[in-house]
Amino acid sequence: MFAKEVYVSRRRTLLAKMAAQGQKGIILFIGNVEAPAQYKDNCYKWRQDSSWLYYFGLDDPQYAAILDIESGEETVYANDVEIGDIIWMGPQPTVASKAALVGVAATKPYGALEADVEKALAAGRPVHHLPPTRYYNTLKLMKLLGSADGSSLPLIQAVISMRLVKEEVEIAAIDDACALGYEMHSVARDSIVPGIIEQEIVGKMEGVTLAKGWGVSFPTILTQHGETLHNHLHDKVIEPGKLMVIDAGAESNEHYASDFTRTYPTSGKFTQKQREIYQIVCNCNELAFSLTKPGTAYRDVHLAAARCMLDGLSALGLVHGDLDEMVALGIAGLFQPHGLGHNMGLDVHDMEDLGENLVGYDPDQTRAKQLGLGSLRMARRLVPGNVITDEPGIYFIPALIEQWKQDGTGKGFVNFAKLEGYYDFGGIRLEDDVLVTADGARRCGPKRLPIAPDDVEAAMAR
Amino acid sequence: MFAKEVYVSRRRTLLAKMAAQGQKGIILFIGNVEAPAQYKDNCYKWRQDSSWLYYFGLDDPQYAAILDIESGEETVYANDVEIGDIIWMGPQPTVASKAALVGVAATKPYGALEADVEKALAAGRPVHHLPPTRYYNTLKLMKLLGSADGSSLPLIQAVISMRLVKEEVEIAAIDDACALGYEMHSVARDSIVPGIIEQEIVGKMEGVTLAKGWGVSFPTILTQHGETLHNHLHDKVIEPGKLMVIDAGAESNEHYASDFTRTYPTSGKFTQKQREIYQIVCNCNELAFSLTKPGTAYRDVHLAAARCMLDGLSALGLVHGDLDEMVALGIAGLFQPHGLGHNMGLDVHDMEDLGENLVGYDPDQTRAKQLGLGSLRMARRLVPGNVITDEPGIYFIPALIEQWKQDGTGKGFVNFAKLEGYYDFGGIRLEDDVLVTADGARRCGPKRLPIAPDDVEAAMAR
Repeated sequence: MFAKEVYVSRRRTLLAKMAAQGQKGIILFIGNVEAPAQYKDNCYKWRQDSSWLYYFGLDDPQYAAILDIESGEETVYANDVEIGDIIWMGPQPTVASKAALVGVAATKPYGALEADVEKALAAGRPVHHLPPTRYYNTLKLMKLLGSADGSSLPLIQAVISMRLVKEEVEIAAIDDACALGYEMHSVARDSIVPGIIEQEIVGKMEGVTLAKGWGVSFPTILTQHGETLHNHLHDKVIEPGKLMVIDAGAESNEHYASDFTRTYPTSGKFTQKQREIYQIVCNCNELAFSLTKPGTAYRDVHLAAARCMLDGLSALGLVHGDLDEMVALGIAGLFQPHGLGHNMGLDVHDMEDLGENLVGYDPDQTRAKQLGLGSLRMARRLVPGNVITDEPGIYFIPALIEQWKQDGTGKGFVNFAKLEGYYDFGGIRLEDDVLVTADGARRCGPKRLPIAPDDVEAAMAR
Repeated sequence: MFAKEVYVSRRRTLLAKMAAQGQKGIILFIGNVEAPAQYKDNCYKWRQDSSWLYYFGLDDPQYAAILDIESGEETVYANDVEIGDIIWMGPQPTVASKAALVGVAATKPYGALEADVEKALAAGRPVHHLPPTRYYNTLKLMKLLGSADGSSLPLIQAVISMRLVKEEVEIAAIDDACALGYEMHSVARDSIVPGIIEQEIVGKMEGVTLAKGWGVSFPTILTQHGETLHNHLHDKVIEPGKLMVIDAGAESNEHYASDFTRTYPTSGKFTQKQREIYQIVCNCNELAFSLTKPGTAYRDVHLAAARCMLDGLSALGLVHGDLDEMVALGIAGLFQPHGLGHNMGLDVHDMEDLGENLVGYDPDQTRAKQLGLGSLRMARRLVPGNVITDEPGIYFIPALIEQWKQDGTGKGFVNFAKLEGYYDFGGIRLEDDVLVTADGARRCGPKRLPIAPDDVEAAMAR
């Protein structure tokens, strides 16, 4: 938890933003409850709601709060433990003492929330809330308001405007999460040995994050089929001569994320064919970083990386034609069907539930429909304090290539015949976390994972 | 996943049990969907519903099924992946081919569930379902049936009667989970070093379970405050001279649980005072195991262990009086406020959401109100195939002792003055997993974790 002043100031800013827009009424925040894994009392590891953490910091289940936009009143709702609970849970600080740690003076039992929301509704006052991220919160909003669908656009926009720009304390927390992410990736890289099951590496690397942090910031992707972008199975034996994509991050005990991807030759050395593609992805990653600075739209950085990718693929004869024309036509989407990056913070895709377009697009930007660019989560003009990922990738996805060939998409630009030689290639992605600074950018974390192909081979040889 | 015949036979038995009770209508099973940790697409590790796994085995999100009690018809509801998904998820087997693996011939899209449930309702046919374990399932049942509260007692009883008695394939799966639990506990024991943070051990041991199994079967308890029974914080530095309770288990990739507790002296050697209490708990554990056999009520085993505990505490002068009288009065509950054990299987507290009393009590048994015995989750007369835990413990809980002293509970039996010398003692629990066999019992797993105090010290000295 940060110092009290951090939370007091954030809530004051939020109320001021809402008032400045002429909003009235109350803001309702509902924290998470435990999430059952099996039966109701056997839960997944406790994770608080990110926006709750941002404004209230209190990392316990079943908390809620009301902020009164007009009066500035702040109330936290939660239950003190009873003597029966003390036997099982030990002596606990009171809700009042916890709320005081984040500068909230007024507390009430959790059950009082309902009456207070009803009172506001009866008085005809708007009740602003964020979209629910958990099914419990959906149920709770249905109970309180009759529906969970009425989230407040002004509130969403105010929250996004604040969480998009990381404070100094947050940047330090992200650097810490990146240090832990570096460590978990290093352990993973050192564990790649043909013959073992992928899961053995996953266990080792996740053990590192659990030993020093909250755990993984998202389910680990570790696969010799990098072309399958959402692959959470780790049941394959590691085979020599393959490429292994490891996309994984740590969440620190303070709940900030890191998110790195590296791609390794399972035998420790790239083949010539692997190295050629790898070098293109590496060039795209470096180019994107060099272009990242305040004032530049990350959409343009995505397109510059796409151009760089097509340039490299041209040199290999996999595509041919005018680079700008190919960029405009979205040919790069065949190889990289995802965007260059996303915001990162308390969520690894920061604030994704507040709406991808509201988070990642300036009001004058429209999201493209093209494969690749259409999946870009962060297109905005960058400002200092943005934390984003830089994650180009090249994948050879037989089903997609066949689909394009059949539909005639990319005809005249894509060398479909030559691509057949890549159907068993897999995929490569290289991802760093980047902070936009006053005059450019820096990579987050104390150390950068080896990325140049020679450096990767050297690290694997140790 | 087990062989197809296992699931076919289980469903046939279930339908036969329902029909034999004169039940009509359909049985509705709703599998789990992914559980969001942060935003909706960033989820906790996937975990299927246990009763779904038992009857249908299919380990994927968003599956449902209807069994028709009268016609015997079986239908699985789930969606095939579309071409758009194949790009992200790779080629996937069809729902029909998956359902065939567990012997279900008829499949429909997930969306068809609603109409089929409506049809049954319109025809006035009962819709039997289990109590929901996840908030999503509550929402789904509300949508399908208008309420999630109408779970079917005959169905619950039929499911319990089956899952309580483990089949050979399940016993083998539990032995595997116990082998992994043994390994994680061994790593933990070897990692206890004064000066490090508890979390470092947790990360290491959980890494072991993730490398070879699904993960932990419940959130790990690892604490130098064993007297705090629900303690999931691991932020303390390990201090010399303390007792560390480690209550943790593995869930195998087949989703069967293990659940072991051991208590270690952080310095590697028990003090005299620690050893005295430890030996009592150890005696209770061994006695309980020796009494575990078909026909014996586990409630009586609990009471025999309580008597053994009071006997040992008498010898130390912490209680005094007639042992049988003290057992009847529940004096042991001051030291062990929990029960001797619970059923274990696909859930670590097996089937807890189906109702603790329905699972753990024979129809002619009534749950006690006494502290300790009242928390006993498994009281039934044992039958071969039951898998239960044997987990006595002694805790010195200052808040509870003070409460008894103030209320006059245990007056004349409890030596409150002497107990004050134990306020900083902590707690000890020793837990094994036990299978009831045809003529007695055996401990699950290939090896038993060291438990006798000398053996524990020897293991820690290595």
